[in-house]
Amino acid sequence: MIKEILGGVCAPKGFTANGVHCGIRKNKTKRDLALIVSEVTANAASVYTQNLVKGAPLLVTKKNIEDGKARAIICNSGNANTCNANGVEIAEKTCQALAKALQIPANDVIVASTGVIGQPLDITPIEKGIPALVEGLGDFSEFACEGIMTTDTRKKEIAYEFEVGGKTCRIGGIAKGSGMIHPNMATMLVFVTTDCAISSALLNEALKADVQDSFNMVSVDGDTSTNDMVSVLANGMAGNKEIVEKGEDYAVFCKALSLVTTYLCRKIAGDGEGATKLLECKVSGANDVKTAKIVAKSVICSSLFKAAMFGADANWGRVLCAIGYSGADVDVTKVDVAFRSAKGEILVCKDGAGVEFSEEKAKEILLESEIEVLISLGDGVGDAVAWGCDLTYDYVKINGDYRT
Amino acid sequence: MIKEILGGVCAPKGFTANGVHCGIRKNKTKRDLALIVSEVTANAASVYTQNLVKGAPLLVTKKNIEDGKARAIICNSGNANTCNANGVEIAEKTCQALAKALQIPANDVIVASTGVIGQPLDITPIEKGIPALVEGLGDFSEFACEGIMTTDTRKKEIAYEFEVGGKTCRIGGIAKGSGMIHPNMATMLVFVTTDCAISSALLNEALKADVQDSFNMVSVDGDTSTNDMVSVLANGMAGNKEIVEKGEDYAVFCKALSLVTTYLCRKIAGDGEGATKLLECKVSGANDVKTAKIVAKSVICSSLFKAAMFGADANWGRVLCAIGYSGADVDVTKVDVAFRSAKGEILVCKDGAGVEFSEEKAKEILLESEIEVLISLGDGVGDAVAWGCDLTYDYVKINGDYRT
Repeated sequence: MIKEILGGVCAPKGFTANGVHCGIRKNKTKRDLALIVSEVTANAASVYTQNLVKGAPLLVTKKNIEDGKARAIICNSGNANTCNANGVEIAEKTCQALAKALQIPANDVIVASTGVIGQPLDITPIEKGIPALVEGLGDFSEFACEGIMTTDTRKKEIAYEFEVGGKTCRIGGIAKGSGMIHPNMATMLVFVTTDCAISSALLNEALKADVQDSFNMVSVDGDTSTNDMVSVLANGMAGNKEIVEKGEDYAVFCKALSLVTTYLCRKIAGDGEGATKLLECKVSGANDVKTAKIVAKSVICSSLFKAAMFGADANWGRVLCAIGYSGADVDVTKVDVAFRSAKGEILVCKDGAGVEFSEEKAKEILLESEIEVLISLGDGVGDAVAWGCDLTYDYVKINGDYRT
Repeated sequence: MIKEILGGVCAPKGFTANGVHCGIRKNKTKRDLALIVSEVTANAASVYTQNLVKGAPLLVTKKNIEDGKARAIICNSGNANTCNANGVEIAEKTCQALAKALQIPANDVIVASTGVIGQPLDITPIEKGIPALVEGLGDFSEFACEGIMTTDTRKKEIAYEFEVGGKTCRIGGIAKGSGMIHPNMATMLVFVTTDCAISSALLNEALKADVQDSFNMVSVDGDTSTNDMVSVLANGMAGNKEIVEKGEDYAVFCKALSLVTTYLCRKIAGDGEGATKLLECKVSGANDVKTAKIVAKSVICSSLFKAAMFGADANWGRVLCAIGYSGADVDVTKVDVAFRSAKGEILVCKDGAGVEFSEEKAKEILLESEIEVLISLGDGVGDAVAWGCDLTYDYVKINGDYRT
């Protein structure tokens, strides 16, 4: 029994949040500094971009949560603090300034940044903004949500309630950006809070396993950011017996975590830069999960397929093409492809060759804003889902002149 | 002494070509059937797409040149003859019809197709078109060039003269499409002719080695077509002693081949769908050539970088980002990046961090139609070049509704 509740990252007990405009971004109506705080020290886990170029905040965060503990998350938008000579120093100063205001150790702070790469980040607005940020702390998940947005057009937050050992636990998350593989200025950041008591080791394990099926299966444009990060804080305030081994309780926690991350994945993909459609590629019948994932990811990453979806064009040849070059071991003569949306489902390819279908019906289905591409490989029982979005004029517009 | 000459694929002795409109494409002003014929049987070599989904013509061609010999190349545009139940049958019938008209064996024909995937190809217009195609054979490299074009906006042909063993040899080539990794409807096809005498085994080896540095280093949009093919015919009519071993003569031939393929690579990338700019990424100072290639390819494939170039935006952070996620083993703190064009050169990143530069000057450089991105890794002596193009509104437009 897991049910959706309100409150985002503030839904779990003992978490408050806030977001303010401190002046990193020129537009004064845009919050550019976000904060999430736990009343008590929480177990913390993070995963980071696999890009060799890593944002300075990630390096500092990694060091700070080596002990598996954290109390607060601070994040600015408008500047990625990456490829700057003094990046680590600025990230550390940010932690120190926040730590002083909250009267907590500086190494209990998770720090993140998102925005342009290679432009020195001035500490002044951050230091000046922190007092108001801390003073205003409350049930303001949506302010934190706004504070981390860059090219995002919609807020992305969710929370669920679940039960562990007779105790009600809550888990909530906020996100920004457009995928684990995505624009470098639309760095994907995800912050999850929970009051469920779970050991630091298992929290890490749960997060690492989860991202394989969630954020690592999202693609907007194939560009892996330097600043991607997913962090989870678990403060244990639900009062359940701490989860310290894999079993039923761990399974329930993982399920709740997955609901949060999957929800945010769909939101991130659907709000990809310039996107008009969420694309969900569901692959079944693969020899194994790995094969299914490779195929799903390849289709969702194809520029040609993405452009066809923008045009609501049932050009299934591009799906077959992307399967063929994916590198997965697939018998293309057994592949079936169908498109599905709220308007119905249509089979367009059977056993690797086209079937007759109504172009009119296909168009109707593809004009919807959420499209499922169903691929059956006819080989085994492995399946996978990947999320992406269409490629549009606006993607080019947004990225053709981002800095100026 | 290798010099450029006129004549395309008809420049070498004993080669004629033609192109006609036979009716596969609706637009009657567009040639859709092309032919290249050698007066005598030529040694032949081909390389094919690595996509698991392979166009039927490729399968037939592969079989036909198992003996290393061919006399003619026939190619239609407007339909890829791929993912069709009867594709192989149609491709074979095409070879038979041409063989009959030319009075040559059917297995001396190389057959290729380019266009939409998954729509049955009618043999009728091809059979009806062949008589006029054969009758009109002559010094018409540019008609063949037109006949294989789809979304191409410019013809791509070139020829060079070189000397082997005191004999003047010629090599010419035509191409269509947008890369080895590229739109499935803009399948890359390259046909090269030479009158240089070279053994079938060495011709194969020369071609296989060449594509590693030429066509495999081109990317327009990351989509590898199902129908890509590069074929070379060497008919020996220059009268040189056949090249049968690696040595000076082989080196000269490889150099001439490389001039043809590199020229066509640049043309293909610069004429990528919707492109306004040719991008040439030159990586030096890598530990080895493999590393240099991975880095060059990663940068040229980045949607974000491509969009920035469209906007003439010197957003070098995206270059660093693409180097970082390339998977190559690079020390990012040693990376320098500069942009160069006819308007000059500008250093934008030194040792992995930004340097001050004139945005005005950078803009002026990037507004040109041919841009070099110079990346120095500071590790060793490995270097590589990759070619691509910018990502534009027109790319989306062309691919958003290609079939209708």
